[in-house]
Amino acid sequence: MKTNIDFVPGLEGVIAAETAISLLDTEQEKIILRGYDLIELSQQYDYLDVAHLLLEGKLPNSEEKSEMEEKLKAEYHVPTFVNDVFSLLPKRLHPMDGLRTGLSILAGIDKNMDDRSIEVNKNRAYELLAKLPTITVNSYRILTNDEPISPRKDLPYSANFLYMITGKVPSEQEMEIFDRSLLLYSEHEMPNSTFTARVIASTQSDLYGSLTGAVASLKGNLHGGANEAVMHMLLKAKTVAGFEKMLMDKLERKEKIMGFGHRVYMKKMDPRASIMKESLKQLCEKKGDLLLLEMCEAGEKIMEEEKGLYPNLDYYAAPVYWMLGIPIALYTPIFFSARTVGLCAHVIEQHQNNRLFRPRVHYIGER
Amino acid sequence: MKTNIDFVPGLEGVIAAETAISLLDTEQEKIILRGYDLIELSQQYDYLDVAHLLLEGKLPNSEEKSEMEEKLKAEYHVPTFVNDVFSLLPKRLHPMDGLRTGLSILAGIDKNMDDRSIEVNKNRAYELLAKLPTITVNSYRILTNDEPISPRKDLPYSANFLYMITGKVPSEQEMEIFDRSLLLYSEHEMPNSTFTARVIASTQSDLYGSLTGAVASLKGNLHGGANEAVMHMLLKAKTVAGFEKMLMDKLERKEKIMGFGHRVYMKKMDPRASIMKESLKQLCEKKGDLLLLEMCEAGEKIMEEEKGLYPNLDYYAAPVYWMLGIPIALYTPIFFSARTVGLCAHVIEQHQNNRLFRPRVHYIGER
Ligand SMILES: CC(C)(COP(=O)(O)OP(=O)(O)OC[C@H]1O[C@@H](n2cnc3c(N)ncnc32)[C@H](O)[C@@H]1OP(=O)(O)O)[C@@H](O)C(=O)NCCC(=O)NCCS
Ligand SMILES: CC(C)(COP(=O)(O)OP(=O)(O)OC[C@H]1O[C@@H](n2cnc3c(N)ncnc32)[C@H](O)[C@@H]1OP(=O)(O)O)[C@@H](O)C(=O)NCCC(=O)NCCS
Repeated sequence: MKTNIDFVPGLEGVIAAETAISLLDTEQEKIILRGYDLIELSQQYDYLDVAHLLLEGKLPNSEEKSEMEEKLKAEYHVPTFVNDVFSLLPKRLHPMDGLRTGLSILAGIDKNMDDRSIEVNKNRAYELLAKLPTITVNSYRILTNDEPISPRKDLPYSANFLYMITGKVPSEQEMEIFDRSLLLYSEHEMPNSTFTARVIASTQSDLYGSLTGAVASLKGNLHGGANEAVMHMLLKAKTVAGFEKMLMDKLERKEKIMGFGHRVYMKKMDPRASIMKESLKQLCEKKGDLLLLEMCEAGEKIMEEEKGLYPNLDYYAAPVYWMLGIPIALYTPIFFSARTVGLCAHVIEQHQNNRLFRPRVHYIGER
Repeated sequence: MKTNIDFVPGLEGVIAAETAISLLDTEQEKIILRGYDLIELSQQYDYLDVAHLLLEGKLPNSEEKSEMEEKLKAEYHVPTFVNDVFSLLPKRLHPMDGLRTGLSILAGIDKNMDDRSIEVNKNRAYELLAKLPTITVNSYRILTNDEPISPRKDLPYSANFLYMITGKVPSEQEMEIFDRSLLLYSEHEMPNSTFTARVIASTQSDLYGSLTGAVASLKGNLHGGANEAVMHMLLKAKTVAGFEKMLMDKLERKEKIMGFGHRVYMKKMDPRASIMKESLKQLCEKKGDLLLLEMCEAGEKIMEEEKGLYPNLDYYAAPVYWMLGIPIALYTPIFFSARTVGLCAHVIEQHQNNRLFRPRVHYIGER
């Protein structure tokens, strides 16, 4: 048995999987998705195009795209027992706990649970892509004592998602910005949640279980939970000066600042964050209120000067979602919903070419 | 950034964590739990002693033991919304899916969700240890259209667990054998489910989410699911000759035989399996029917001769659970329930000395 005796905390730099799905190419400074640059994709395509790319290995032509849209709309319906379960949950639960439960129970709709073939897994992925916005929104609505809302098939996918969240049909600009955020969140190589999903799938466990674990992972502050934490900081700070002081105080106390840093980008700005910053600028200009943009830019400057750290996607996603009127507790669930398609692609790949994940430990206890 | 360029499928031999909880010491051929040999523990102590050892770092004295038992009994009660949720689930779900859901929703009882301190995490662990048997059994009972059952505080911990499963108060021998199986399942270094729990906890996500992911992992056939698969084989084969033929045919078709092999023990018998084999012998002799023992021994012989592979714990746990009158679909949920305490110890350790798990990939897709 080979043993890698150097223990690297957090598996930093350790290759955990072979994948044809995506790569953070730090040399070329690109995020590669199935051969395409994610940033270029975000300028020319929409979320569903990228979802198709992730699941089918190619961008859809217009016929494939409309077929896909029809297929998804046909699957929007979520069985009633799902909302009934949400109604029974204690209201103190975070929507991520609701979503985790929703994915866990959704296994109940599957009639071929033991089938791990590509075809069946792919169908599950489309079904999840169709149902996740509704489940995401309604777990939140029910946990906050609101009535569940029904999806609207007359709206495009992302417009419907945003409509269910805010209760208002979004403008063209709002829809595009929201869609772009989903696209940027769709896939990102091997973050903790994707790794979790693959580790679980490697026991030959099913897609629902793998995704349930991924929701649990994404909930953490060091991962998806960061977007909510950023917004709470911004709201608490209120002004540019307040935010600057808050950050300096936190740094003084050696606290980690949510929304900054990344295992792989550490020393430069996450290219997805630049795109989101541009979206924030558009929304602020439209509203004629630049406060959030100015606060974020001030924070960015401080963190660069003080720590040499740069914003990650969550830093700019937070104020963008705020400007779109999205409740803060939904930021991480939306991130998950957008990432579902990437996670499904990884589980499918893992099931196709599998070996059980089973590492070792460095024992530091008594003998 | 360091990069381990050698990709090792399944992270075989890669050190993923520093831990003071347990070690598979392959040189000494021992399973070490907090400095003790698991096999010796199984001969002198019971499951709750080992649970105390795992959570507190020491075996309990008699006073601590009775305090612990009282504490657990005070926490047996499971809030009604849990069974109400189970009642809403589609009946086709596996009890592991029920259990996964049960853990996910149990987060709703927690009033300090954001507290990751040792003390609070440990209290959660005791609460889970107390409630898991009831949740495990009732998710199964409700999914199979049976009435939920209430725990009996007049029975010892393991006797009550077995009573809830079978509806009968077990004999001294049955209780001891069942208790020993829980003890043997309680902790085992870094199997996939423990790794899953630690990966999730490393985002600073909570204990419930970490355990939810671990249930999903344990469900897979290559991990906990193996015990159920073994029993199905034995029942299908019916006789010693039938089982021999079945195994030879499977080997011929290059199928994996559930219940054999282990990433770490590969080349010898899992010492826990030997203990369980002894339990099987006792139960068979008591019943005056050696069939299952003889079938298992014949299978063992074939696998050694044909593949040089040895039984793991699940191989002998399956017929033992059968002889104890336990429904097959509960084998893996019981494994999980027994492992909860080990998983909690790992999550506590991870939260105390954390770094986010975030490995890299070897990209084999298009550029
Ligand atoms: C994302 C993250 C976990 C990845 O980083 P990592 O590779 O695990 O880095 P570490 O946590 O080991 O940090 C390395 C050093 O940078 C510092 N650092 C990293 N991110 C920091 C942050 N956001 N604020 C302040 N300091 C930070 C650490 O304190 C550490 O300093 P030290 O060596 O002096 O102790 C980390 O940057 C972080 O916690 N960021 C905040 C949470 C967040 O925004 N997550 C969303 C990511 S998309
Ligand atoms: C547990 C297990 C996944 C660990 O093994 P691993 O380190 O991942 O080993 P691999 O699956 O890579 O197998 C290595 C070789 O042994 C063979 N092998 C391992 N376990 C086998 C089994 N149970 N039956 C038949 N062949 C087996 C493999 O086919 C492989 O042979 P190859 O090199 O000719 O392809 C594996 O032994 C297994 O699948 N066992 C059955 C499931 C089980 O009982 N799980 C419970 C474990 S507690």
